[in-house]
Amino acid sequence: MLKKNRFREIDDELLKDAAFFHGRLAPGLYLGFFMVKKARELIGSTEMIDAVSETVKCLPDSVQLTTPCTVGNGWLKVFDYGNFALTLYDKKTKEGVRIWVDLEKTPKGSLFYKWFTRLVKEKEGDEEIILGEIKQLNERLFSFSRVKVEIEKGKHLPLMVCEKCKESFPVKNNVNGLCLSCQGKGYWVKV
Amino acid sequence: MLKKNRFREIDDELLKDAAFFHGRLAPGLYLGFFMVKKARELIGSTEMIDAVSETVKCLPDSVQLTTPCTVGNGWLKVFDYGNFALTLYDKKTKEGVRIWVDLEKTPKGSLFYKWFTRLVKEKEGDEEIILGEIKQLNERLFSFSRVKVEIEKGKHLPLMVCEKCKESFPVKNNVNGLCLSCQGKGYWVKV
Repeated sequence: MLKKNRFREIDDELLKDAAFFHGRLAPGLYLGFFMVKKARELIGSTEMIDAVSETVKCLPDSVQLTTPCTVGNGWLKVFDYGNFALTLYDKKTKEGVRIWVDLEKTPKGSLFYKWFTRLVKEKEGDEEIILGEIKQLNERLFSFSRVKVEIEKGKHLPLMVCEKCKESFPVKNNVNGLCLSCQGKGYWVKV
Repeated sequence: MLKKNRFREIDDELLKDAAFFHGRLAPGLYLGFFMVKKARELIGSTEMIDAVSETVKCLPDSVQLTTPCTVGNGWLKVFDYGNFALTLYDKKTKEGVRIWVDLEKTPKGSLFYKWFTRLVKEKEGDEEIILGEIKQLNERLFSFSRVKVEIEKGKHLPLMVCEKCKESFPVKNNVNGLCLSCQGKGYWVKV
């Protein structure tokens, strides 16, 4: 049985789980909780949602911790654009809300602003202050718009066996009977 | 404080958490648990590990549920190759173990084989059988090799503000002052 309604509120239990899952309550992770919360409010009661994170940093974990969407179950897509932005949208209509950190609204004097724009190197204790600012500033840190998402649904791809290493891989990556690694496009070498 | 030692064994509590996090105990998720377990045994006591999943399907959640590595904390990289393979490796030496489903070893008569190669459409009850086969066949389903990983460490990228939408984005994506979305490369349209 698919647990569709796995949304979570920002409470002490979540913060504890977040520290365990992510390693610590990082500012980007915490910020993401408020962005998910706002997006959920805006799209209403829809339970069957998909998500997109436009960065690999922190935000994917915010989504995975507070919604039913994970990378591995396919409900969360992660695009490595480097934008601190996310979209929650209805699985069927593809309509939803995109929300992003809006530096034009963010108080320039805040440590948050300096941290986000990487103007200063973090000092001991800064993170605590930034977390406090995120909680206090909340919606003054981001903007949103209604969007319709255009992503093709992933398909089960036919497999083949690599002629060299004998490993199975998707036919779409085939060049001369070789898998990506044997084409020299892998991320590893044998030791 | 970063919790380095967050590895988990395959027990009832994990299976319960897995069903909650992933939506259900899917075969790919369960298979991934055994692959992570084997890789951990092979690399020994190293606690500071990074991980790579070579598919977006299921396997990233296996890693996220049983190791300290998550997508959002950067310890898990996900490459969308479509290979059911993963690598665990030491953060410092970059040496570790790559492990993959080896169809040459897998019994051809098993439902697992048919499911993995998508030769049959799943029927009600099949999943239960496949889960049982995974538990029973375990190491007969995969092979491994020692590898050294060659991935550049992600850097904090300088940001700029898009001239059109005023959103901040990494300079590396800049074309004529525009962010990816304003270049028409986004995954959404406004509604």
